Amino acid sequence: MASIGHATLLFCVLLFTVSGARASDPELTKEFSVPPGVDASQLNGNYFTYTGFRGGVSTAPGETGSKKATVTEFPALDGLGISFFLMSFAPGGVLPPHLHPRGSKLIYMIQGTLTVGFMDSNHKLYNSTLEEGDLYVVPRALVHYMANLDGDKVTKVIFAFSSSNPGSIRLPENLFGSNIPAKVLKKSFGVSGKVIEELEAPFYKNTTGDYH
Amino acid sequence: MASIGHATLLFCVLLFTVSGARASDPELTKEFSVPPGVDASQLNGNYFTYTGFRGGVSTAPGETGSKKATVTEFPALDGLGISFFLMSFAPGGVLPPHLHPRGSKLIYMIQGTLTVGFMDSNHKLYNSTLEEGDLYVVPRALVHYMANLDGDKVTKVIFAFSSSNPGSIRLPENLFGSNIPAKVLKKSFGVSGKVIEELEAPFYKNTTGDYH
Amino acid sequence: MASIGHATLLFCVLLFTVSGARASDPELTKEFSVPPGVDASQLNGNYFTYTGFRGGVSTAPGETGSKKATVTEFPALDGLGISFFLMSFAPGGVLPPHLHPRGSKLIYMIQGTLTVGFMDSNHKLYNSTLEEGDLYVVPRALVHYMANLDGDKVTKVIFAFSSSNPGSIRLPENLFGSNIPAKVLKKSFGVSGKVIEELEAPFYKNTTGDYH
Amino acid sequence: MASIGHATLLFCVLLFTVSGARASDPELTKEFSVPPGVDASQLNGNYFTYTGFRGGVSTAPGETGSKKATVTEFPALDGLGISFFLMSFAPGGVLPPHLHPRGSKLIYMIQGTLTVGFMDSNHKLYNSTLEEGDLYVVPRALVHYMANLDGDKVTKVIFAFSSSNPGSIRLPENLFGSNIPAKVLKKSFGVSGKVIEELEAPFYKNTTGDYH
Amino acid sequence: MASIGHATLLFCVLLFTVSGARASDPELTKEFSVPPGVDASQLNGNYFTYTGFRGGVSTAPGETGSKKATVTEFPALDGLGISFFLMSFAPGGVLPPHLHPRGSKLIYMIQGTLTVGFMDSNHKLYNSTLEEGDLYVVPRALVHYMANLDGDKVTKVIFAFSSSNPGSIRLPENLFGSNIPAKVLKKSFGVSGKVIEELEAPFYKNTTGDYH
Amino acid sequence: MASIGHATLLFCVLLFTVSGARASDPELTKEFSVPPGVDASQLNGNYFTYTGFRGGVSTAPGETGSKKATVTEFPALDGLGISFFLMSFAPGGVLPPHLHPRGSKLIYMIQGTLTVGFMDSNHKLYNSTLEEGDLYVVPRALVHYMANLDGDKVTKVIFAFSSSNPGSIRLPENLFGSNIPAKVLKKSFGVSGKVIEELEAPFYKNTTGDYH
Repeated sequence: MASIGHATLLFCVLLFTVSGARASDPELTKEFSVPPGVDASQLNGNYFTYTGFRGGVSTAPGETGSKKATVTEFPALDGLGISFFLMSFAPGGVLPPHLHPRGSKLIYMIQGTLTVGFMDSNHKLYNSTLEEGDLYVVPRALVHYMANLDGDKVTKVIFAFSSSNPGSIRLPENLFGSNIPAKVLKKSFGVSGKVIEELEAPFYKNTTGDYH
Repeated sequence: MASIGHATLLFCVLLFTVSGARASDPELTKEFSVPPGVDASQLNGNYFTYTGFRGGVSTAPGETGSKKATVTEFPALDGLGISFFLMSFAPGGVLPPHLHPRGSKLIYMIQGTLTVGFMDSNHKLYNSTLEEGDLYVVPRALVHYMANLDGDKVTKVIFAFSSSNPGSIRLPENLFGSNIPAKVLKKSFGVSGKVIEELEAPFYKNTTGDYH
Repeated sequence: MASIGHATLLFCVLLFTVSGARASDPELTKEFSVPPGVDASQLNGNYFTYTGFRGGVSTAPGETGSKKATVTEFPALDGLGISFFLMSFAPGGVLPPHLHPRGSKLIYMIQGTLTVGFMDSNHKLYNSTLEEGDLYVVPRALVHYMANLDGDKVTKVIFAFSSSNPGSIRLPENLFGSNIPAKVLKKSFGVSGKVIEELEAPFYKNTTGDYH
Repeated sequence: MASIGHATLLFCVLLFTVSGARASDPELTKEFSVPPGVDASQLNGNYFTYTGFRGGVSTAPGETGSKKATVTEFPALDGLGISFFLMSFAPGGVLPPHLHPRGSKLIYMIQGTLTVGFMDSNHKLYNSTLEEGDLYVVPRALVHYMANLDGDKVTKVIFAFSSSNPGSIRLPENLFGSNIPAKVLKKSFGVSGKVIEELEAPFYKNTTGDYH
Repeated sequence: MASIGHATLLFCVLLFTVSGARASDPELTKEFSVPPGVDASQLNGNYFTYTGFRGGVSTAPGETGSKKATVTEFPALDGLGISFFLMSFAPGGVLPPHLHPRGSKLIYMIQGTLTVGFMDSNHKLYNSTLEEGDLYVVPRALVHYMANLDGDKVTKVIFAFSSSNPGSIRLPENLFGSNIPAKVLKKSFGVSGKVIEELEAPFYKNTTGDYH
Repeated sequence: MASIGHATLLFCVLLFTVSGARASDPELTKEFSVPPGVDASQLNGNYFTYTGFRGGVSTAPGETGSKKATVTEFPALDGLGISFFLMSFAPGGVLPPHLHPRGSKLIYMIQGTLTVGFMDSNHKLYNSTLEEGDLYVVPRALVHYMANLDGDKVTKVIFAFSSSNPGSIRLPENLFGSNIPAKVLKKSFGVSGKVIEELEAPFYKNTTGDYH
């Protein structure tokens, strides 16, 4: 895309945001999507190649690290119904309960072990302990978690999603870092205001604490 | 369906469960679905009428009440991409944060006022205070809550969903009543084991407390 | 949207019409649609709230009244696969045979009684008499009618559709107010030209009568 | 399928009806559908060939004739999203206003001329006069008619549909041969009971006339 | 569209290309698509009529001829999920093995005979010999061929597709006229470099022959 | 599933084949699919875990090796729109030109280098040379190849597909091992019968050679 001018690229970015919001994952009527303003005849194999995962993903001790390749980072995925995340879990690293509103997720274990689980609408837990080489699938929009609880080395994992833009709703922040009224949270979780404050503290570190 | 025998009905129930799991909401290839084993020529307008909402929904003080009309209660909805809930909120009644994995939700206010909000994947809150006659829409699979915080009479609401079987994931139970390992919850929410125990208490009332 | 300039809004309206024609109801690849030209960061809960139904719908004696909340009136519905109509039927009020090409319809009876029916492709009638609280479902694109035939008070009803833009084809006008050649109508309905003229009269009141 | 026994075929027919009601046109997860109970390894090219259109379609003077190849007549179409009708229009032959709830229709003129038209939801008529070789498209679920008004020889036409089972709602019978209450019809069409009786007469020839 | 200015048309063409790449065949949210920049109120029946097939398709001796009516040639098809090809096969005319990535294909025999076949993923051949009036269906994305092997007159055929833009991958050119590395081709087909050169020769007539 | 009897399992296998042919990848109306005859309450995390990839994939020198996890091997994928292959390419190993009729494919390079390419319908090649960590995407139903041409160690790769059952059409066998008439192949590829015989030889090793 080296030959495309600055104004054209700006125009592309603007339109891409708009049209991205409307594109339908299940069915393209062309062989692949061409970003608005880009001359299709200029595209070559590079457009379909993504090198952002080279070098893997590092992680601090006890934490997790990730890189994403969704339609945002890799525009050629638009309309093709698939995307990838690369993740590392240091020993003790935890991926908090979260969900992907627009995609099922297939986990592949490149290295190490992983404790995983998802819950259905009856709050039944489907948990598993994965070893190197294992696959595990989480159905679309169900809450799940992952953790390197027992390993003593970094766990490396690939996630594949059934959407070019699966989205990700991280529940601790979504529930306790989004200004839901305290009255609602107290009654919903059946706990005192003090407990709610402790749950909200990680997301309001620099505030006075009077966040309601 | 009075003329259908017992064995046939059993057969229907079995098959219905199975085929229900596979049916596709967006597109039928018949005008409507006929439950397996039922003779389509016996169907009349009653099959397309649901009377289970008559009399409305009662609610205890400070609580909420609901009735559902999804494909489970109203089989004619199969494949038609729509369903309904009827809800009552007594003053102080709260519908805890939850999500519907397979449907967007359109709320219609029959009576009273309602505090509502949903959060996107950046944890931004889109809240509103609804009056009688108002509509509010929650996109598919996003977390939302509702409460009759300010009213002094019962609030009556209709929910319409863009699926015959939208599902419902109630987050307090899903997170704290499903046996997710305590280590995962503590690190995910950044709180002590004691806080986690308080959050789990409502769902383990009759246990010893040693639920990990 | 108060801070959006005039030219931008014009641009939005133009593009919105265009993209609306292409959007796919079943599957968004974003959490919700943002109208073209609108800055998503400016959106708040008001965008997802529709107040146009406040005060309900009035109706003249013997007639019907309606308000709509489709993607046209309530842009946040774009891509979410759902919409609502609010309707009132005075005693004697009739909603003539019509169909919705892009959506199934779920009727909820807020008040009163209603005579309803739809016909399948074998011309079999599935009729019902609905009471307050009842639900009735009409599969996508089938012809149906409704009337407050027996009630002595106004009937109030909500329609929910499985599309953000279900469309509505009112058959009396579609057949007899659209200039279909008289020869076609006479042979199709097996009646004389005089009968066809009587059927067309309501839609050509101000013409000479020589409308063929 | 000569080697399949009688009981198996009965079983197939039963299950086929049921599963046909659930199959989704847009997306198969196999290369093609195999009727329940049939051994896929026994299928050959004959399963994908339909010979029922040989010899064409005859028509009485002033009338129309048709043959269908939908999933009912040609089971290999199941899930493939396409079907065909073959039609003949004698001079004066009319296909009354009708609609296909589940498919758009593409008309191809093999021989002769044809007057066609469809109406949108604003009752605007999009009519055309087709010659040999012409194509004309009718969007899904819109009302349309066809007639050989001006020709002096038989018109031969192919219809292709974007569904394996598009359905067909013939409006004269649907409206006036389905026992819609006379009160509803009179008010809907703004005509007297006598006009409604004339419209219903063709569909109640052998009844007493007291069909309300 | 005679009244639309030059600049507007250019604007249309540009936008149409872009939006065409994103439109979803299965589901429109309007009754039909209006090309960007075109005033919908100016459209009439001509927009839905395509006359490009008049006069049929000629073919040189031993060859084939074709005309297409996809969304590119006939814009009204956009979003309607259907398109047509018209084909002629002179005696000896062959349509080489090819596939349509986005549509199933229904063949209708207007005149003559035709040898057809498609292969499934187990390389099983489903072949047939078609006569005038026959239908034959090829599931989406499977490889198929057609030939007028036995006839002594021109065979005339209609193809209908379950997409407005089915695409067409002609395998001889795709495999041997696209610069796939010779090493890959030799090993893939288990033949010598000389055989690969013979296969590539038809597509590199004007080159030196050193095409690797 | 240890507690399920033999007859039940047989029943499951039979029904599973049938229903598998009808299931729609894009949209489930349950949280996940339960195989027919299986009691959903007996399912646990093991049902969502697949261990068949443990130990990786071996390959003979100069060849390739693969393991699949589609809905056939891993039934929990049913309706979730995703599947995985694991592949090894020894130096010189080639995956011949092929296509997946029902899914786009995202390649992730675990180890080594890989030469890849796909062709569009204009026979334009989009090729690339992938290193460890790279991603490359092939749109649905387009022909592509892969080879470890330059590496001196085994290349290890993951393929993710946007379907639970993408299918695989291997073109050398599909074209030259499926009994397409020799006349068709000769004219299609523009080569002599001798060349066709050489191309067919690998797939007819044990026959007399008179395979036409």
